[in-house]
Amino acid sequence: MSHEEIAAAALDQLAIELPSWGFANTGTRFGKFLQAAAATTLEEKFADAAQVHQLTGACPSLALHVLWDLPGGIGDVARVQALERQHGVRAGAINPNLFQDQRYKHGSVGNPDPAVRAEALAHLRESVDIARELGVRDVSLWFADGSNYPGTQHIRKRKHWFAEALGMVHERLSPAQRLLVEYKPFEPAFYHTDIADWGMALVLARDAGAQAFVLVDTGHHYLGQNIEQIVAWLLDEERLGGFHFNDRKYADDDLTLGSIDPYQVFRIFHEIQQAAWEQGHPPDLAYMVDQSHNLKGKIEAMIQTVRTAQELWVKAALVDRAALAVHQSACDLVQAERCLTEAFATDTRPLVRAWAEAHGLPPDPYAAFRESGYLETITRERGARNLSSVTSYA
Amino acid sequence: MSHEEIAAAALDQLAIELPSWGFANTGTRFGKFLQAAAATTLEEKFADAAQVHQLTGACPSLALHVLWDLPGGIGDVARVQALERQHGVRAGAINPNLFQDQRYKHGSVGNPDPAVRAEALAHLRESVDIARELGVRDVSLWFADGSNYPGTQHIRKRKHWFAEALGMVHERLSPAQRLLVEYKPFEPAFYHTDIADWGMALVLARDAGAQAFVLVDTGHHYLGQNIEQIVAWLLDEERLGGFHFNDRKYADDDLTLGSIDPYQVFRIFHEIQQAAWEQGHPPDLAYMVDQSHNLKGKIEAMIQTVRTAQELWVKAALVDRAALAVHQSACDLVQAERCLTEAFATDTRPLVRAWAEAHGLPPDPYAAFRESGYLETITRERGARNLSSVTSYA
Amino acid sequence: MSHEEIAAAALDQLAIELPSWGFANTGTRFGKFLQAAAATTLEEKFADAAQVHQLTGACPSLALHVLWDLPGGIGDVARVQALERQHGVRAGAINPNLFQDQRYKHGSVGNPDPAVRAEALAHLRESVDIARELGVRDVSLWFADGSNYPGTQHIRKRKHWFAEALGMVHERLSPAQRLLVEYKPFEPAFYHTDIADWGMALVLARDAGAQAFVLVDTGHHYLGQNIEQIVAWLLDEERLGGFHFNDRKYADDDLTLGSIDPYQVFRIFHEIQQAAWEQGHPPDLAYMVDQSHNLKGKIEAMIQTVRTAQELWVKAALVDRAALAVHQSACDLVQAERCLTEAFATDTRPLVRAWAEAHGLPPDPYAAFRESGYLETITRERGARNLSSVTSYA
Amino acid sequence: MSHEEIAAAALDQLAIELPSWGFANTGTRFGKFLQAAAATTLEEKFADAAQVHQLTGACPSLALHVLWDLPGGIGDVARVQALERQHGVRAGAINPNLFQDQRYKHGSVGNPDPAVRAEALAHLRESVDIARELGVRDVSLWFADGSNYPGTQHIRKRKHWFAEALGMVHERLSPAQRLLVEYKPFEPAFYHTDIADWGMALVLARDAGAQAFVLVDTGHHYLGQNIEQIVAWLLDEERLGGFHFNDRKYADDDLTLGSIDPYQVFRIFHEIQQAAWEQGHPPDLAYMVDQSHNLKGKIEAMIQTVRTAQELWVKAALVDRAALAVHQSACDLVQAERCLTEAFATDTRPLVRAWAEAHGLPPDPYAAFRESGYLETITRERGARNLSSVTSYA
Repeated sequence: MSHEEIAAAALDQLAIELPSWGFANTGTRFGKFLQAAAATTLEEKFADAAQVHQLTGACPSLALHVLWDLPGGIGDVARVQALERQHGVRAGAINPNLFQDQRYKHGSVGNPDPAVRAEALAHLRESVDIARELGVRDVSLWFADGSNYPGTQHIRKRKHWFAEALGMVHERLSPAQRLLVEYKPFEPAFYHTDIADWGMALVLARDAGAQAFVLVDTGHHYLGQNIEQIVAWLLDEERLGGFHFNDRKYADDDLTLGSIDPYQVFRIFHEIQQAAWEQGHPPDLAYMVDQSHNLKGKIEAMIQTVRTAQELWVKAALVDRAALAVHQSACDLVQAERCLTEAFATDTRPLVRAWAEAHGLPPDPYAAFRESGYLETITRERGARNLSSVTSYA
Repeated sequence: MSHEEIAAAALDQLAIELPSWGFANTGTRFGKFLQAAAATTLEEKFADAAQVHQLTGACPSLALHVLWDLPGGIGDVARVQALERQHGVRAGAINPNLFQDQRYKHGSVGNPDPAVRAEALAHLRESVDIARELGVRDVSLWFADGSNYPGTQHIRKRKHWFAEALGMVHERLSPAQRLLVEYKPFEPAFYHTDIADWGMALVLARDAGAQAFVLVDTGHHYLGQNIEQIVAWLLDEERLGGFHFNDRKYADDDLTLGSIDPYQVFRIFHEIQQAAWEQGHPPDLAYMVDQSHNLKGKIEAMIQTVRTAQELWVKAALVDRAALAVHQSACDLVQAERCLTEAFATDTRPLVRAWAEAHGLPPDPYAAFRESGYLETITRERGARNLSSVTSYA
Repeated sequence: MSHEEIAAAALDQLAIELPSWGFANTGTRFGKFLQAAAATTLEEKFADAAQVHQLTGACPSLALHVLWDLPGGIGDVARVQALERQHGVRAGAINPNLFQDQRYKHGSVGNPDPAVRAEALAHLRESVDIARELGVRDVSLWFADGSNYPGTQHIRKRKHWFAEALGMVHERLSPAQRLLVEYKPFEPAFYHTDIADWGMALVLARDAGAQAFVLVDTGHHYLGQNIEQIVAWLLDEERLGGFHFNDRKYADDDLTLGSIDPYQVFRIFHEIQQAAWEQGHPPDLAYMVDQSHNLKGKIEAMIQTVRTAQELWVKAALVDRAALAVHQSACDLVQAERCLTEAFATDTRPLVRAWAEAHGLPPDPYAAFRESGYLETITRERGARNLSSVTSYA
Repeated sequence: MSHEEIAAAALDQLAIELPSWGFANTGTRFGKFLQAAAATTLEEKFADAAQVHQLTGACPSLALHVLWDLPGGIGDVARVQALERQHGVRAGAINPNLFQDQRYKHGSVGNPDPAVRAEALAHLRESVDIARELGVRDVSLWFADGSNYPGTQHIRKRKHWFAEALGMVHERLSPAQRLLVEYKPFEPAFYHTDIADWGMALVLARDAGAQAFVLVDTGHHYLGQNIEQIVAWLLDEERLGGFHFNDRKYADDDLTLGSIDPYQVFRIFHEIQQAAWEQGHPPDLAYMVDQSHNLKGKIEAMIQTVRTAQELWVKAALVDRAALAVHQSACDLVQAERCLTEAFATDTRPLVRAWAEAHGLPPDPYAAFRESGYLETITRERGARNLSSVTSYA
C-alpha cells in the first residue's frame, strides 16, 4: 500500500471522544483563568464538540459527566438525546462524580462510613442506568479516593470495599456495557490513592467481572515509567478498555496530547497497531481526550489535540512491521529501532490533509476555525455571563 | 551539657511563623472540603494563630497575605497592628499575590505585556511599604509565572523582566528589610516556571542586591533531590533567607512537616545547626510554615507541625558534632553516619515536654487543645457562615 | 503487654537472611573500590555471615548465588552442607544468575533466540534442584531482561516467553518449594524491563502457579511510589513472598536499610504486622538483605542493617492497633496518624539491647565487632590476595 | 531562504565531537557485554572516529580521556599528534579521570585527605598542560565526588575544597583555554554529589574565573526537569560551555541522543539557535557526545547519534522566529507553540541527505557503513583479543 492508502485506512479507524468538561472553565488550585467563550451549559458543550468534529472528522461522540451535565440524572436522558440529534454528536462515556460532594471528604466507595459507600454505589448504579438508556457502552470510573497521611486510613479494608462496590456495579451492567477502571498515582490524595497504578486497576477489574477493563490516562504514571509497556501488557491480558489522552511534564498536568513528548504517544499508538496487525483486526478501545485547557482557547486546543493524534496515529501506521519482526528476532538493534524512528520522522501532515480533503473536511482546521467566526460569536454570546464572577483562591 | 540543657537551649532559639492562609478553607483543583471552624477574617486568623502559640510557645508571628488579609493595602496597617496587640502575635512576612487576578493569566513580572508588569511591580512595592510600616523584616516572594507549553513564552526575555523587577523592588527596601525569593519546579505552570530551582533564585537574588535571599520551601524540589545540600550551599553563599515548612510525597503536596519523611527534616536542621556550631551563632533565618490542611483540622495540624518541628530540632541539636568532625575527617563512614542516626533515634518527646512545662506551657498540646473547647466554640460561631456555600469543581 | 514484652515477642519472630554477595567486593559501573577484608570464597562468606549472626542473633541463613557460590551446580551441595554445619548458618534462598554470561546480551528467558531461552530454563531448573537438595524453600528470581531502545524487542512476545518459562520452572518445584518473582523498573535495561513492576510480577506469578510469589525489593520502585501500599495489596492477594531489604535516594542504590528513609521502612513493617494482628499469625515472608556495600565495611554495614531493621521492627510492634482501628473508622486523622508517629518516635534501642542481653548477645554489636579483632584478622589473611588486582573502568 | 538553504547553513555550523571511550567496551554494574569490534588502543579509537566523520561530515574531533588514552600523560602528546595527522581527526576535549583510582574512594578534590586532594590537583594541572600542548581549548571536568550516606562527609567543607582546586586549575589555563564544569545529580555517589546541579556548577565556575563554563550533560538531570530552560539561563549568564549529548529514560542511561525524547533535544537546539538569531552569531559551544553503547554496535550507534543530531538541528533551524516573536508577545499560545511543532513535524531527512551529497558524503551513512566492510575487518582484526577475557560481576 502507498503511504496515502495506509494513512487513509488508519484515519478511517480513529475516532476520538471529546470530554464535555474540556469546553468549560477550569483551573489549578491557585485559581481559574476565565475564558469568555467557555461553555457552561450542556447545549454549549455539544455545540463546541460539534465544531471540533466538523473540522477534524474524528470526534463523533462527547463524554458526559453526570453531576455537571445530567444533574437530573436519568431524567435528563431525553434532553441529551435531543442534543445528540441536533448536533450530530453522540453521547459518549458516562463519568460519575464521586469526589466533589462534601460527603466524600474521606472517600467514596472506600469511605469507612457505610452510609457514604452506599450513596456512592447508588450514584454508580444510576450512571450505569443512564449509559444504558443513552445506548452508551462505557461507564468510566475515576476515583479520587485515598488518604493524605500514613495511618489515617486502612489500605486493605478500602481495597475490599472497592472490590465489593465494583462487583455490585458490574452486576448492574447490561451485556453490551463495559466498566472502565482508571488509575492515578496521586492527587487529590497525596499519601495513598486507592487505585494507584495499572496493577491495582487490573486486580479490581478482574475481580469485578468480564466486562470490566482498565482505562489508561496517559498522564497518570510515575516519572520514568514505560507507558507503552503497560499498554502492551493490558492488551495481552485482554483488559485494556481505552485511553484518556493528554500530556504532562511532571504530574497530571492535563496538557494537550503530544505537546511535551510526542514520541511517547507514537510508541503507544505503535503498540496498539502492532497488536492489531498481528491479530488481524484493531483492538476494541475507547480513545477519549481528558485535558484541562487552562490557558489555551478550549476549542482550538481540542482541534490541536485531535489533529496531533491523527498525525501521530498515521506515523505509527507507517512502521514497517514485517521488517521490524525480522530485525527484532535477529536482535539487529539499530535496524529494528529505525523501523520506529523512520516512521516517526515522516511528515504525516500532508497525508492527514489529503484524507481530510477526501472527506470534505478543511485541510487546515486551525485556519478554518479562525476563519469561521465561531469563536467570536460564542465569545459575544457567552462572555457577559462567564466573566461576571471572579475567581478566588482554591 | 545534659540532653535537657541542649534541648532547652535549642528550643529557646526556634521560632516558627504561622501562615494566615493555613487557617482558611483550601482545597485541591478537584474541590474544597469546607471546615466549619475555618477562619475567614483576619481577626479569626490572628485568634487561631494565638491559640497555636499559647499551646506550643514557638509561634510569635503570623505571615500575612496582602490580597486576602490586607485588601485595603497599606490602609489596613492600623487594623493589623491592633490585632497584633490584641492577640500577642506579631505580623510576620508579607506575601504579595501575583497569581490570582485575571490579568496575570500569562504571568506577572514576567508577562510580555508591560502594563501588567507595571501593575505587578506596583503591588510588590506596596508590599514592601506595608512591611516597613508594620515593622516586618521580610517580604516573601513566590511567583506563579511560567508557561504551559514549549514555545509559548520567551524564557530569556522573562528572565530579564524578572531581574529588572526584583532590582526595582530591592531599591524600595529600607536597610532593615529583606526580600525572600522562592523557587518551585512546577505548578501552576506546567512546562516552565520562571524561578524553577534554587540556582535561578540565587542568580536573581544576587542580581537584585545585598538584601535579597533565597527562600527554601521544602516541598518545592524534584523527586530525589538532596534538599539539605542546597541548604548547606545557600548557607555557605550567605544567601539563605529562610524556609517554608511542609512535606510531600510526590509534588508540592503541602502536607504537615515531617509527616512523610521526618529524617529529611532532621538532616536539614542538622545542616543549619552544624553551621551555627561552626560559626558560633545561629544563622539568621526565617522559619515559616506553608501548608494547606485540606482534610486535617487546621489548628490541630498547626500544633502537630510545630511540635514535630520542635522534636526534630532537638534531635538535630543532639548530634555529637565533635565526634562527627573526627569521623568525617577519618572517613569512618559508619561511625560518622551513626552520629546522625543515634541522635535521630533518641526520643525527644520528653525533652520537649520538659521545656514546655518549664515555660508554663501544656506538656501535651494536642490534649490541651482538645480540652480547651476552642474548636467547639469557633465551630459554632463560624459554622453557619462557612458552610453556606458549596464547592464547585475548580 | 509491656514495651519490653512486645519488643521481645516481635524480635523473636524476625529472621533476616544475609546475601553471600554482600560480603564480596562490588562497585558501580565507574569502578570498584576494593576492600582487603572482602570475602571471595564461599567459606569466607559463611564465616562473615556467622559473625553477623553471632552479634545480632537474627541471621540464621545465607542467600546463595548459584553462579558465584555453587559454580559446580548441584555437585557443590555437599560442600555447602558442610559449611552450614561448620558455621551454624543455613543456606538460604537460591539465586540463579541469568545476566552475566555473554549469551544473555539480549535477555535470558525473554531472549528471541530459543536456544538461549532453553539454556536459561535449564539453569533455572538446576537452581530448583539445588534448593531442593539443600532443603531450601525459596528460589529467588531476578531477571535483568529488557531492552535499551524503543522497538528493539517485542514486548508481548517476551511476556509470553516469560510466562512459559516460569510455568515450566514451577512444574519442577516440590510441594515445599516456592518461586519468588522480583520486579525492577530499570537497570541494567534502560528502556523496558520485562518485569518492571509489582503488577507484572503478580500477573506472571499467578500464571506460573500456586507456589509462585512476588518478591519486593525496597529499592525497585519509581520515585514517589507508595511501597507499603503495594505490600498491603500483595498481602491481601496472598501473593507476597518476601523482601529484599535496602534503601535508596534516587535509583536502585543498594544502600543500607533505613539509611535514607527510615519512616518508610517502618510503614512497611507496620503493614505486615497489622496484617499479622488481624489474622492472628504473622504472614509467612522471607526477609532478605540485598545491599551492595561499596564503601562501607561489609560486615559492619550488615550489622548496621540488621540492627536498624530490629529497631524499626520493634517500633512497628508498638503501634496501638486497637486505637488505630477506632481512629481510622472515625476518620480522626491526626489521632490515627499519631498512632504511627508516636510509635516511630519511641526510642527502641534500649528494647533491642535488653532482648539481646536476654539472649546472650552483645548489647552493642558495633562495639563488639570492633573489639572482636575479626576484621583485623581477615584483613590480614585476605588482604594480599584481594588487593593484587586493580579495578578497571567497567 | 529556502528550507534547503536554511538546512545547509545550519549543518555547516554543527560540529560534534566524539568520545574516545565510546568506541571501547563498556557495561553496567551488572557486567559488560563484549563486542569483538570494540576499540582498545588509541589508534583504534582514532580510526573508528575517522569512519564516523567520513560518513557524516560532522565529527572533526575526538575527546580524549587522560588515564585511558594518554597513560603517559604529557609524554603521549606526540603520539596523539601523529594520530591526528594520520586520521584527519583532531584531538578534542581533554578529560581527566579522578574516579577510578583506589585513592579516590572518598573523593578527589573533595577528599578530606589533603594528600589525595593534592594528587587530584596535580592530575588536573597536567590535563591542562596536555590540552595546551595539543592545542585543545577545553578541559572537561566531571567529578564522581560525593557520599553515599547522610553525615559521612562535610558538605560545606567539600564545597570549599572544590572552589580552591578549581581556582588553582583555572590559574594554570592559558588565555585560549577553557574549563568546563559538569554536574550530575547522582551516581556513583548515591546520597550527595558535590556538583549535583547546574546551580552548583555555576557557583563554582564563577568562583574559578572568567574561563570556566558549565557543561550540560543531557542525561544529568532530575526527572521532569526542564533542560532547555537551564540552557537558556546559562546562555543568558554567558556561562554555557557546551554539551554532553545522550538520552535517558530514568537515570543517566547514556543512550543514543534523541532515542527516548527527540522533542526535548529539538527544544534545546531551539534555545541555542534562538539566542544565535537574536545576537547575530552562534554562541561558542562545544557539542560532544557522551554515550555508552552497551549493546548497540559502537560505530553504528555513533553514526545514528550524529545523524539524529543533524536532523533535529535542522528542524530547530526551521522555526519561524519572526512569527514566533509576534505570537509570544501577543500570548497567542497555540500559534506560538505551532512555530515549534510545525518545524518539528517537518521531515528533515531529505535536507540532510542533500547537504551530505553536496559535500561528497554518502546520503545514507547507515548503508554506507554496512557496505564498507569496515566492521567486518575490525571484527576480524580485534576479535580474538577482545573476547579473550570474560566479564565478571562488577
